[in-house]
Amino acid sequence: MSQYDEVYRAVSPAEFFYKYREIAGFANPVRAVYQTIRELVENALDATDVHGIPPDVKVTIKKADETQEFYQITVEDNGIGIPPNIVPNAFGKVLFSSKYVMRQSRGMYGLGVKMVVLYAQMTTGRPVEVITSKPNLKRIYYFKLRIDVNRNEPVILEAGSWRKTRDWHGTIVSVTIEGDWNRAKSRVLEYINRTAIVLPYANIALLTPENEIIYYPRVVNTMPRPPVETKPHPQGLDLEFLSSLVKNTGFDTLEKLLIDSFQGIGEATARQIVQKAGLDPDRKPDSLTNEELLALVNAIKSYDKYKPPSPKSLSPLGEEIIIAGLKRAFEPEFVTAVSRRPSAYSGHPFIVEVGLAYGGKTPIGEDKPVVLRYANKIPLLYDEATDMIVEVVKDEISWDNYMVSLPAPILVLVHVCSTKVPFKGVGKESIADIPELRREVKLGIMEAARGLKQYLSKKIREEEAKKRAENIAKYIPEVARSLSIILADEDSFNALRSEVIRKLTTVVAKKTGVSLDLIQGIVKSVEAEAGV
Amino acid sequence: MSQYDEVYRAVSPAEFFYKYREIAGFANPVRAVYQTIRELVENALDATDVHGIPPDVKVTIKKADETQEFYQITVEDNGIGIPPNIVPNAFGKVLFSSKYVMRQSRGMYGLGVKMVVLYAQMTTGRPVEVITSKPNLKRIYYFKLRIDVNRNEPVILEAGSWRKTRDWHGTIVSVTIEGDWNRAKSRVLEYINRTAIVLPYANIALLTPENEIIYYPRVVNTMPRPPVETKPHPQGLDLEFLSSLVKNTGFDTLEKLLIDSFQGIGEATARQIVQKAGLDPDRKPDSLTNEELLALVNAIKSYDKYKPPSPKSLSPLGEEIIIAGLKRAFEPEFVTAVSRRPSAYSGHPFIVEVGLAYGGKTPIGEDKPVVLRYANKIPLLYDEATDMIVEVVKDEISWDNYMVSLPAPILVLVHVCSTKVPFKGVGKESIADIPELRREVKLGIMEAARGLKQYLSKKIREEEAKKRAENIAKYIPEVARSLSIILADEDSFNALRSEVIRKLTTVVAKKTGVSLDLIQGIVKSVEAEAGV
Repeated sequence: MSQYDEVYRAVSPAEFFYKYREIAGFANPVRAVYQTIRELVENALDATDVHGIPPDVKVTIKKADETQEFYQITVEDNGIGIPPNIVPNAFGKVLFSSKYVMRQSRGMYGLGVKMVVLYAQMTTGRPVEVITSKPNLKRIYYFKLRIDVNRNEPVILEAGSWRKTRDWHGTIVSVTIEGDWNRAKSRVLEYINRTAIVLPYANIALLTPENEIIYYPRVVNTMPRPPVETKPHPQGLDLEFLSSLVKNTGFDTLEKLLIDSFQGIGEATARQIVQKAGLDPDRKPDSLTNEELLALVNAIKSYDKYKPPSPKSLSPLGEEIIIAGLKRAFEPEFVTAVSRRPSAYSGHPFIVEVGLAYGGKTPIGEDKPVVLRYANKIPLLYDEATDMIVEVVKDEISWDNYMVSLPAPILVLVHVCSTKVPFKGVGKESIADIPELRREVKLGIMEAARGLKQYLSKKIREEEAKKRAENIAKYIPEVARSLSIILADEDSFNALRSEVIRKLTTVVAKKTGVSLDLIQGIVKSVEAEAGV
Repeated sequence: MSQYDEVYRAVSPAEFFYKYREIAGFANPVRAVYQTIRELVENALDATDVHGIPPDVKVTIKKADETQEFYQITVEDNGIGIPPNIVPNAFGKVLFSSKYVMRQSRGMYGLGVKMVVLYAQMTTGRPVEVITSKPNLKRIYYFKLRIDVNRNEPVILEAGSWRKTRDWHGTIVSVTIEGDWNRAKSRVLEYINRTAIVLPYANIALLTPENEIIYYPRVVNTMPRPPVETKPHPQGLDLEFLSSLVKNTGFDTLEKLLIDSFQGIGEATARQIVQKAGLDPDRKPDSLTNEELLALVNAIKSYDKYKPPSPKSLSPLGEEIIIAGLKRAFEPEFVTAVSRRPSAYSGHPFIVEVGLAYGGKTPIGEDKPVVLRYANKIPLLYDEATDMIVEVVKDEISWDNYMVSLPAPILVLVHVCSTKVPFKGVGKESIADIPELRREVKLGIMEAARGLKQYLSKKIREEEAKKRAENIAKYIPEVARSLSIILADEDSFNALRSEVIRKLTTVVAKKTGVSLDLIQGIVKSVEAEAGV
């Protein structure tokens, strides 16, 4: 081989992601612990609330070797389980997944658990263990497997099943990885805590290697509406996708293809689009040339009377759940939530939700409110500096205008849900700057902040009224005494004085809007001081 | 299908990256133009300087449609070319590449050009065109091809070849994509400019759709030493890699496997390691159990007398090239460069290089010096906020201590080269925080900054000396006149005066270290003022 030659080779998807595991979040032994727990917990949640089941999730972390930093991480859920014939690929084949559908879920790339299995394999060599059963099955299935990295295929080491003795369904996944638990611990606890904030409808328990139990019990019975799979919206179309439809679906006519493949295209719309592209609605799709396909894409994308993408595929938290979560976490003096109307970018529907907590145990925001970021119910903990949401909170909202003078105990929770959250990387840590999304985030925060402003200005008004009332109330005993001296004789003095005090306190309370109790309290303390 | 069922499917690597193209930098029509040019230019450069050929790279961008924003982007290089039998996979199969070897190159993931082809396919449907020939071939080869996304296979639409009439070798790649050139233009120009800064040994030309020519001609004949492929270093080992070696290499004994598969393991070391793992050096590798493999990995990784990873696989720029590049770009008053000694993290060798420019046309750094980041000779333009290098420049260096009072015209160039640059994503825009790397970056910057400090303090000393000399020189004419009045008669007056002036200027110049010319100039201007 000369210096002018190169060696070319193909790698399997498993080898690719094993080689470049840091792009999926497995950069070092600290991140690996965090990422492993996160991937398994998110799968557990996707198997439950996405299907209308209130989640019960249990995470157990155990030291698995006396000398080496090996940890066994087990996550158990009460979800829909995995069909036994699917288990090997679902855990042992990279780019095989249930997440490649148009529906909001925490998982998006279909990579997570496979990366966990690969990481276990490269650090401890121990296989993944899976126990699972679906609600309608009579048996529980058990697998022990690894990934053949070169072939990107699962290798089953053990498999078995047994009869159900109780009505259990769900999945238990157990892996053993090398990791730095001591340094990962605080991040993991933060992750579980933040997950619990938006899931007050879940039971989440964590058992640490130190045998500490962290438990977030269910506090509400409301569940977010589960998402429904939808057809793609025509605005998200590209030429490659249309070419693939035309080749692989076998429709007789262009018209049928359009009506059946997309949401929001009926007969009339289909005809209009096809004619605009200069084509015949009855044309056989697979006879189109590249130029005709391009004309069709342009006609589909430039048609401007579509309904916006259906939000049925989304599962927002809802204001009630956000408020319940923030209340449990921060016992705030004021809390509000805003669930914006559905919007869309490039044919992908999305909803922005904002929660705002103030006072109580809310942490102090220094130069901006504390920001909790969520995407499809996942908390985002890393890469805050490049996140669009943080930029909006910091640079686009004048908190002064909302009567917030920082530093102050104020926290903003922003939840973006979409069939396609524009993450900046497969590690899912920060959200890219999409104008449509940025706008909604800003409007959502402003709406929540207006609620806070109302509360704060009412609070200030009340405090001012209280002060005014106090200033007046102080003189009531003296006024009552003076009046009684003039108008009463010795016998009626006390009665008249009490009567005047009673009347005056009532009048002052009414005029200032301050409670009678408070005014009476002030009067009493003044009398006590004067030795009456 | 009930609500408790899921649809599982496998996607091909092509489909995966097409679906999630934003993680490879193809997030929107602006980024797509930038990323396309970048991927093609980087491949062109990898085909030239990596193989010791001084690069001639020509980029042409043309509007390719009258009504739509289609652009044809063509990149031509004088590199080593691609063997004709390899071309289809090299452009049409995701995860097929020459970049999966242990050697520094700009490409790392083997994704770039395939992402470009996919993006062209989804926006304009036009195939990629490739013209290529290797130095030793007599013919030039031509291909037009696309990617079958579902199968991840190239589809050849046209192919041909012709006899060379001149001694040409290299590759010309041409794609047509939809993009937002107007908004991408400034980024593209910045990218080309920054590329040229570290490649003063290259000819780089860009022709824009507006027919502007941007040309950076070669200004030095030095070339960086080309990198040489090396074996992996044992410290970078993991269990998965060892298992795969054991299974796929077919060595007779463990000893031979270790000696042959890794750098820096000789017979004695191999025996020591194997014995530490409690194994027999003559043991057949494929008979090892998982526990034995793990013991071997631990023995290999805990052995602490390896030489550090070989830097032969690296190709640093060198101080001369960095200085030449900065001089051309900024004509600075002061410039220095530091090429640190090789270092390593997790078995990956790396070298940090730092350039520092001050004054002249150097841009003004406000709260910190302007930072130009490079990784394996690639300029990094996005995601500056989360980059470790920027953090170091901003937070870990007290610029005051180096006599720099910001804002000031100061720029720091940092180049990290490694067989594995720890990028945060496949878009290759920012560098992760690896302690070993951070340390070297800091030391490199400090070393360069010390050079600047010396220069600045010398400059200040000189300025002070000059001021002092000026203060003294002003009085020379008066002193000479007074002396001459006392000592000379009318005839000798002028001669003596000139003689005294000559002597005094020499003495003052000598004592203050300021040039004679300057002192003489001051004397003359004082005389002129006095009308002598």
